[in-house]
Amino acid sequence: MTKKTKVNAAILIIGNEILSGRTQDTNTSTLANWLNSIGVKVGEVRIIPDNENIIINTVDFLRKNYEYVFTTGGIGPTHDDITARSISKAFGLKYEIHNEAFKILEAYYKPGEFNEGRQKMTWMPRQANLILNPSSGAPGFNVDNVFCLPGVPSILKSMLGGLTNKIIGGEPIKSLTISLRTVESEIAKSITKIQHDNSDVEIGSYPFFHAGKLGVSIVVRSEDQSKIDQCNSQILKFVKEKKIQIVER
Amino acid sequence: MTKKTKVNAAILIIGNEILSGRTQDTNTSTLANWLNSIGVKVGEVRIIPDNENIIINTVDFLRKNYEYVFTTGGIGPTHDDITARSISKAFGLKYEIHNEAFKILEAYYKPGEFNEGRQKMTWMPRQANLILNPSSGAPGFNVDNVFCLPGVPSILKSMLGGLTNKIIGGEPIKSLTISLRTVESEIAKSITKIQHDNSDVEIGSYPFFHAGKLGVSIVVRSEDQSKIDQCNSQILKFVKEKKIQIVER
Repeated sequence: MTKKTKVNAAILIIGNEILSGRTQDTNTSTLANWLNSIGVKVGEVRIIPDNENIIINTVDFLRKNYEYVFTTGGIGPTHDDITARSISKAFGLKYEIHNEAFKILEAYYKPGEFNEGRQKMTWMPRQANLILNPSSGAPGFNVDNVFCLPGVPSILKSMLGGLTNKIIGGEPIKSLTISLRTVESEIAKSITKIQHDNSDVEIGSYPFFHAGKLGVSIVVRSEDQSKIDQCNSQILKFVKEKKIQIVER
Repeated sequence: MTKKTKVNAAILIIGNEILSGRTQDTNTSTLANWLNSIGVKVGEVRIIPDNENIIINTVDFLRKNYEYVFTTGGIGPTHDDITARSISKAFGLKYEIHNEAFKILEAYYKPGEFNEGRQKMTWMPRQANLILNPSSGAPGFNVDNVFCLPGVPSILKSMLGGLTNKIIGGEPIKSLTISLRTVESEIAKSITKIQHDNSDVEIGSYPFFHAGKLGVSIVVRSEDQSKIDQCNSQILKFVKEKKIQIVER
């Protein structure tokens, strides 16, 4: 596989339970961290309801605007699991039983337990590629650049290992964090200047409150380590001049 | 204030730190739970980077498609805090010092500590309405139906109380959760039928794993308590027929 320099992706979280506030989404940060580690930058995340038209329109937009799209949720056995059917419609593909998925689940369950609900999980867009599920049997799938994963965080996590060789990432995005015993307003001007002088590096400033004390973490992100190192020297220079304490976090 | 029957909103999380996976977003569930309690249903959430054009375009789309938009993040003192400037551009309003915000922060800080970085937090779209901040001084603001809140979860939470009287919600969305000692595939058919017979009620099915045992929570949501009660009876009927145990969660 050839490495590209910049590869982007969108994450699409499908599920009323996230929009109602009932469930705290953690899949975004799991996917984002994993994607970063293989050199894919997340450009945007959308959280949408279990609604066929909305899923179709959103998938259609994202797959045309990002190199990869990762969906989570809606591939289980119940009535509110409509991701596979919606993806079929988004691609204009037949929604049908996937023979390989059927064989996997037939073998996974005890005789007599592979009931209608479970069989629903083998319905996918025609010619979908399976994403194997080492923790609970039912596979995810991808069609073209759209990868459909389950919503249950532990199951999703268990499937990422098997997915890595399907994604061609770019240079891994490296990051440096410097945590300071200061407040944002004290360093705003210095950081603005460093960002201005290093416009292709992403510099973020994040206040924190830890063990009763305020501080700020400066995060520098780039594919290019030498650019990170350059920002690091510039940050350490003003930190020394202003006599700001560097803290461990 | 007159109550409308259905009121919707979009949440816009602004911040590279969420897209990189460094920070786990919790503001979505905080806002969604609060909005539900005042009868506002969240239709979608978007998470986008600290990028002016993207903020402008996204705000512009969301404010025209939802009754309320709530943004979080990007209103602090540093270079990556560009929400207020972007909102000004989205509305075609001048970006300038807000006199009332200036007075609030001038009084909040000790003499000599109201520096340039802190003064930046008083720059807002012309004629923005302030949202007071009881925990760290710097106010949020709204222009028309777009409400801009900070990204730090504890500060955001402290500001919601003062915001409630600015939002005209509909009927609060009520919900019922029934947790069962079963697996989704066992109840999929029954729940599908109940959803079909009660198409204006939102019924979700969520597997859980707790204290070493599998279960499923069925969540029924509606503005109309009598419709929830009707679903409740139908669910309890099949639960009894199938001899499924109801569990406390």
